[in-house]
Order: sequence, then structure tokens, then C-alpha cells
Amino acid sequence: MINLSILGTGNVASHLIKVFRNAENIKINQIYTRREANLLPYKKEYNTTTNIDALTPADVFIIAVKDDAITNLIEKINIPNQFIVHTSGSLPLQTIANRNGVFYPLQTFSKHTEVDFTSIPMCLEADTQADYKILEELAHAISDKVFPISSSQRKSLHLSAVFVCNFVNHLYAIGNELCAENNVPFEVLYALMEETTKKASLNAPKKVQTGPAIRHDEETIRQHLSQLNKPIYKEIYTLLTQSIQATNE
Amino acid sequence: MINLSILGTGNVASHLIKVFRNAENIKINQIYTRREANLLPYKKEYNTTTNIDALTPADVFIIAVKDDAITNLIEKINIPNQFIVHTSGSLPLQTIANRNGVFYPLQTFSKHTEVDFTSIPMCLEADTQADYKILEELAHAISDKVFPISSSQRKSLHLSAVFVCNFVNHLYAIGNELCAENNVPFEVLYALMEETTKKASLNAPKKVQTGPAIRHDEETIRQHLSQLNKPIYKEIYTLLTQSIQATNE
Repeated sequence: MINLSILGTGNVASHLIKVFRNAENIKINQIYTRREANLLPYKKEYNTTTNIDALTPADVFIIAVKDDAITNLIEKINIPNQFIVHTSGSLPLQTIANRNGVFYPLQTFSKHTEVDFTSIPMCLEADTQADYKILEELAHAISDKVFPISSSQRKSLHLSAVFVCNFVNHLYAIGNELCAENNVPFEVLYALMEETTKKASLNAPKKVQTGPAIRHDEETIRQHLSQLNKPIYKEIYTLLTQSIQATNE
Repeated sequence: MINLSILGTGNVASHLIKVFRNAENIKINQIYTRREANLLPYKKEYNTTTNIDALTPADVFIIAVKDDAITNLIEKINIPNQFIVHTSGSLPLQTIANRNGVFYPLQTFSKHTEVDFTSIPMCLEADTQADYKILEELAHAISDKVFPISSSQRKSLHLSAVFVCNFVNHLYAIGNELCAENNVPFEVLYALMEETTKKASLNAPKKVQTGPAIRHDEETIRQHLSQLNKPIYKEIYTLLTQSIQATNE
């Protein structure tokens, strides 16, 4: 049985409370947040507090607050030897407490959308092997996908995610705009987008590259560039074409 | 009952033969290809020929051969008033036959991978409303997603597909490379990639843009650029960041 306390009631915190509530061998010891109003949904069922000095020891404190509030909050916790972990993908392992860790669910969360934790990759880090074991047990209670990820690995992961998530979404936005301009329903492309993403998880994406760039189909490339109106979209087309060709030389 | 003939036995043709074989109210009249050996899998069950002059009239001829062989093949067909359609996404409606059309399944096909046609968008075009009706019936017999797409719309679709499929795959390849360089298993990102793609089909992608670019988080952007080794990846990061910021101003 792991006894945990959750500090925070925002987006990630509320999802964690919900999923740990139904997890086996997990007990939520306490829920802390600064504003009384945010504790309302939890007061009946849980031991809650807005007073940081009223926190009692637990196997682990999970801090799920905004990145820029994390170190400040850890500094205020007055329990010697308390294991304290944060849930942020962009911050390194903290060194403020005696026993530090990271419990990072790698997914985008919206407060009112249901989340299936079983498929969310849990990225874990701790100072010691013993503390790592606690996080591992915790993660396995809610997810099938558990990875030990060091601070430096998490830094690379964060950068990769910008390419495969933020930038990919922008390419979808451009594709959507091009369709809209020409009265093509964007949904015609959904199946292809899904298939492309599925394929990238079955093969090395480099090996399944298709399209005019890798075929060096200059005629089609010229034609496509002439269809694009915005100079920056022409630049993106040209640069990504060059990069595909350079990568596959 | 629609009576159709298929010209070609390659990638797309073989998938079409398989799916029409089991479709209701469809009969495959004839299969044509130039090389006798390619007819072997079909000789027992179908009327096959390598002689273009042995083709008999049908409700529709579906030409599924390489793009650069299409016009040549149509010119050789000697049946007056025969309705002839091609399956190419990049070619306009032909004007060689009396009755021309396009029957374009928008998906990537591999010859030995099973394909579920029901979710493949079928993009249709024909000279006349009457011929369009034939294609519509044909498409509905195998797919739930049928769209009238003109030649000029198909041109935009093809350009969009380069952004949301070919370029997206290249960003996956970059993400994969960055992970590999830093000993991070790429699979940690699969759930995020899937979610990003799913989200783009539920909302306008522009509206769900996240990441350091749209937040104008200069500190993270600077940090990411310093992590990238290849100059062209730095260029891609900078250009896509600019484009996200320009689009959302």
C-alpha cells in the first residue's frame, strides 16, 4: 500500500486524484492547495488542507502545480526526509528536498476531458533506487507504460515533442488552410494523417518516407511551390524538401 | 448491378480486385494487363486478357497503372463510348475518351498489407452527372467515405497531403533521430503523436496549437536551438516557430 499526498488541484492534479482514487493499493493521504475554494470537490472524501504546515508525512508527495511555483512550494515543506516529486516535463530533478523525484505523465491534459491513463507513458526519475521503486509501483498502478527517464533524457524528449507534436500540428494547420482556400473538406485527409502516424510507430519514420521530395520529382515540387501563396509556406516547403533529400542521401 | 473491368494488376489494382470481389452488386467483367505472368493469380476465377483489342464493353473501366502509362493506355482502347476512369491523385480528369472519370482512393497502399477500404476516402469525378452516379454507387459499395472532388480540388489535396503526410513523417524522423542520439526510446512519444493527430480531426488544428512558439517562450526556444546540432534542424525549428507565431498573431 502506497500512501500519497497530492499538492495542487489544477489540470494534472485533478486527473491524478481521479485515477489514483480507483487504483489498487494506493491511498490518497492528503490534498493540499492554497485556495480553499479549490478544495471543495475533495473536502467530503479526503483529508484536505490549505495550510502547508498541516501536511503530514506520506510515502510520497506529488507536486502538480505550475512550473514556476514548484521550487517555491518544495522549499516551504517542513517535513524532514519527505520524498517529494514534481510532474513537469521541462524541469530537471530538483535538489531542494532530501529525497527528490519526477513523476511525469507525457500527455496533453484538458481539465474536463476524460483521460485513459493506461496508455499514457509515465516518465520516472528519483535520486535513489529505493525511491525509484516507489514511483514505479505508483506508475504501474495506473499505466501500462513506465519508463525510467533521466533529466537529460527528458530534455531531449521535450525538444523531440516540439517536432512531433507542436510542429506537426502546425503542418496540419497549414494543410487545413490550403484545403479551406480551395473548398476541399479537410476530413478527406484524416485517414492519411492517421495512417502516417500509425506507420511511424511501426517502422523507423525515415525508412517509410514518401512524396515528391524523396523521389526528387522536380516537376511536382515546382508545381506545388507555384500553388502556394504565402512566402513563408514556400520557405517551409523548400526547407523541408531540402532536409528530406539531405537526410536520405 | 455494376459491371466493371480493371486494367492493371499492380498495387492499387490488386487491392481493388480483392475488395470488389466481395462487394455486393458488383461484377468484375474482365482483368487486363500487358504481361501474362501478372494474370496468373486471376486466370482461374476471372475473364482475363493481355490483348487490349479483346476488351469487351462494361459499365466502367478502372485504369490502375502507373501515372505515366495512363494516357497511352486509354488511347489504345477501341470501344466507342466506353466510360474510362483512372485512380491517380496527381493527374487531372483525362479528355481522351468520350466519357472520362476519376476514381481515386486517398490512401497509401502496400501490396502485401491488408487494407480496410471502408475508412478510405474515395474521391470521385466524372464528365457527366450520370457517370458520376456510377462511380458513386461503386464507391459506396466499398467505402463509407465518398467525396466529389474536382481536378482543381484534387490538385490542392495533393499539395496539402505533402504537408500533413510527407512533411509530418519527416518531422517524426527528426524526432526519432533526436531521441536516438540521447538514448530515449522513441515509443515514449507515440501516445502524444496519436493524440495530436486525433485532436486535429476534432478541432481546427490552428485553434489547438500548443508549445513554446505560440507561448512566445523565448527562454525555451533559445534552449532548444542550442540542443540541436545540425544547422538545417536549427533552420527548421526557427522557421516553423516564426510561422506559428505569424499565423496566430
